[in-house]
Amino acid sequence: MLNRINFLALMILALPGCSNVPLRGTGDLGVVIERATGSIDVVETSGRSVLGKVTGLGDLSHASVNYSRDGRYAYVFGRDGGLTKVDLLEMRVVKRVMQSGNSIGGAISQDGKLVAVANYTPGGIKVFDSATLDQVADIPSLDDTGKSSKVVGLVDAPGNRFVWCLFEAGEIWVGDFKSPATPVLQKFKHIGKEPYDAMITADGRYYLAGLFGEDGLALIDLWNPEAGAKQVLNHYGKGEQKLPVFKMPHMEGWAATGSELLVPAVGRHEVLVIDENNWQEVAHIPVHGQPVFVVARPDNRQVWVNFAFPDNDTVQVIDVQSRKIVQTIHPGKAVLHMEFTPRGESIWVSARDDNKVTIYDSETFAVQGELHVDSPSGIFFTHRANRTGL
Amino acid sequence: MLNRINFLALMILALPGCSNVPLRGTGDLGVVIERATGSIDVVETSGRSVLGKVTGLGDLSHASVNYSRDGRYAYVFGRDGGLTKVDLLEMRVVKRVMQSGNSIGGAISQDGKLVAVANYTPGGIKVFDSATLDQVADIPSLDDTGKSSKVVGLVDAPGNRFVWCLFEAGEIWVGDFKSPATPVLQKFKHIGKEPYDAMITADGRYYLAGLFGEDGLALIDLWNPEAGAKQVLNHYGKGEQKLPVFKMPHMEGWAATGSELLVPAVGRHEVLVIDENNWQEVAHIPVHGQPVFVVARPDNRQVWVNFAFPDNDTVQVIDVQSRKIVQTIHPGKAVLHMEFTPRGESIWVSARDDNKVTIYDSETFAVQGELHVDSPSGIFFTHRANRTGL
Repeated sequence: MLNRINFLALMILALPGCSNVPLRGTGDLGVVIERATGSIDVVETSGRSVLGKVTGLGDLSHASVNYSRDGRYAYVFGRDGGLTKVDLLEMRVVKRVMQSGNSIGGAISQDGKLVAVANYTPGGIKVFDSATLDQVADIPSLDDTGKSSKVVGLVDAPGNRFVWCLFEAGEIWVGDFKSPATPVLQKFKHIGKEPYDAMITADGRYYLAGLFGEDGLALIDLWNPEAGAKQVLNHYGKGEQKLPVFKMPHMEGWAATGSELLVPAVGRHEVLVIDENNWQEVAHIPVHGQPVFVVARPDNRQVWVNFAFPDNDTVQVIDVQSRKIVQTIHPGKAVLHMEFTPRGESIWVSARDDNKVTIYDSETFAVQGELHVDSPSGIFFTHRANRTGL
Repeated sequence: MLNRINFLALMILALPGCSNVPLRGTGDLGVVIERATGSIDVVETSGRSVLGKVTGLGDLSHASVNYSRDGRYAYVFGRDGGLTKVDLLEMRVVKRVMQSGNSIGGAISQDGKLVAVANYTPGGIKVFDSATLDQVADIPSLDDTGKSSKVVGLVDAPGNRFVWCLFEAGEIWVGDFKSPATPVLQKFKHIGKEPYDAMITADGRYYLAGLFGEDGLALIDLWNPEAGAKQVLNHYGKGEQKLPVFKMPHMEGWAATGSELLVPAVGRHEVLVIDENNWQEVAHIPVHGQPVFVVARPDNRQVWVNFAFPDNDTVQVIDVQSRKIVQTIHPGKAVLHMEFTPRGESIWVSARDDNKVTIYDSETFAVQGELHVDSPSGIFFTHRANRTGL
C-alpha cells in the first residue's frame, strides 16, 4: 500500500503542467537590474510589487534587457559578455552563455527568433536562436584594413534587420537576417569619427549615431538607404571649447514626440529640440544639470530628464507643448534609470545609492509606491517586446 | 487502501497551482471573433495556431475586445449588451454580465482598473471594475431636454479618461475617472449632426468624430480642451450628391503615420491623406472600392485597406512614402478585419464567408499560414492592452 501511495505521490510531481507557479499574464511584468549583485528582481506593475529575485547573472554593471515576443523570457546582456535567458514565471535561469569577453548590449529581431549581442572584445556581433541560445551567426567587425572595432549602438529594425556601429572604423552596418545563417550586410563607411552610441526612431525609420571624435550626428534613413549616411546637427557634441563631460548621454532614451526629437545636449545643461523634418535645432531648454536620459511619456506630452554627477539626485519634467519645466523631484541618490508603464500612468525611477525604486503618478507626481532593491540600475518592462528599438 | 488512494487522487486535483494549463506568456496571444456562433478562438502569433475555443458569449455580430493590463483576460463586448470576461490561459468565461439591451463597444482605462461600455439601448455608458465586473458608474446620455442618445465612439484617453459621442444630441463628452464613482464630466455641445463613430490618435491627443448628418468631422484637442470642438475637413462625408454608401467606414482603423492621417473616404473609391498640423486634405489615393478599414503597419511605412461590398474580397496595400498601391491581394470572401502582429512582421486577415484567417508576411506578401475559423470577424491581439485607444 505504501508503495502505491508513494507511486501516486510521484505521479503528482510528474503531472504535466503541475507546478507551484501560479498562472498569470506576463503583460505587466518587468525586471530591475541589481547592479552590484549580479541579480535581477522580477516586478509587476499592477500591484507595484517585487515578485522575486533571480541570481547568478554575472557582471551587470552595464546591463540591458530584451524580451521574448510572448513576454515570458528576459534576455539579460551583461558587461562580462554573458547572455542569460531568464524565465519570469518560474523565476529561474533557463540558459546562460558566455558569448564574448566584454559586451555592451543586445537586441531581439522583429520576428522574435533571433537575439543579437554587440561586443567590445573582440568586437563584432553574435546572433543566437532565441529559443535555444544556440549560435546562428558570428559577424566580426573588421574594416577594409582587417582591423577590428568595438561594436556599439546595436538595435533591431523592421524587416528582421539589425543595425550597429563600428566605433574605431567609423562605420554603420545594416544586417538583413531574413535568412539568419546567411545575413546580407550593407556597410555605410566614413559616417563620422567614433560613433559611441545610437538610437532608432520608434517607427524604425531613422537610425542616428552620436559621434565621440567630432561634433555632429550620423543619420541613415532606412526607408531610403541608397541616399547614404548624412551628417546632421553639426554643432551637436562636446564643441570646440571641449566642455567637461561627466557622462556621455544615453541615446536610447531620446524622446520622439511626433515630428520633434528632444535630445540631451553634451556637456551643457540643456535639452535640445530637433525638428525631424530637417534635422535642425529649433529650441533648447535649460535644465538642472548635464542630461543623461530624456524619456518621453507614452503620450508624448511630457519628457522626464535625469542628470550626470553631481546632479544625479534630481529629475526634471518638461511639458512638451510649452517647453517649460513643470516639476523638479529628488528621487534619491544616483538616479540611473526611468521606465514608464506601457500606457504612461506611472513612472518607475531607480536610485542606486539609496537602494530603492520609487513609483510616481506621471500626472500628479504623487508617490504611488517605493520598493527596496539592492543598487538598482536599469528598469525594463515586458511591453518592450512589442516595440521596435527597445 | 482504496480510500487512501482516492483521497490522494482528490489531493492531486486540489493542489494549489496544479492544473492542466501549461505555463505560458500572454504577450503573443489574441482572439478571433466567431461572429455566427457566439464564440471566440484563442490564438497565438509565435507558432500561428489556434489554442482553443471559448463559447457562450452571446450575439457577437458586432463585437470588440479589450485586454487586461497583464494580457491574461479579454473583455468581449457583444451587440446584445453582454460584457464577458474571458481567461485566455484557462480558456473559460470568468464572468458575464448583461449590462444593457444593445451595445456598440467598450474601452479599458489607462490604469487597467475600469472597463466602460457604450450603449445604444437605453444609451449612456456603464463602467465596471475590471477585476470583478461590479458596476462602478452609470452615466446616462441625456441632453438638455432630457432626451437620451445612443452612445458611439467610446475610447480611453490618458489621465484615466474616457471620451464618447451622443449620436442624436450631437455632443462629445469627456469623463475623468480618477475617482471612478464620482467621475468629472466635460460636455462639448453642438459639435455637428449625428456623430456616428470616432477615433483617438495613438498619442491620445486628438479625438475625431465622423458625422452622419452632415459633412465634416468634429475635432477635440485633448491637450487644449478649452479651445472647444472644431469642425474640420468640411468636405469629408457623403457629399451633396449623396453617393450610395454601402458601409460607413470604421474610424478605429484610421492610420496615423507621423504627422499625416490616412482616412477612408465616404462613398468614394479613395483613401484621403490629411495633414495633422492643419487638418487639410493634402492628397487622395485611388483604391479598388469603398474603403472600410485603413490600417497602418506598426512602422507606418504601409497601410492596408479593405473594402465594402461588392469589393470585399480584396485588400490593397499602399506605400505611404510614394502614396502608390504596391500590392492587391484576394484573401477570400467577405474580408472583415485585419490585425498586424505587434511589431508588424505579419498581418492576420479574416475572410468571413470562406471561414478562414490568412496570415501574410507584410514585406513579401507571402502566405505564412491559414487557420480554419467559423465566420471570423474581428481579430485582436493582446498588445492592445499597452496602447491608448485600442
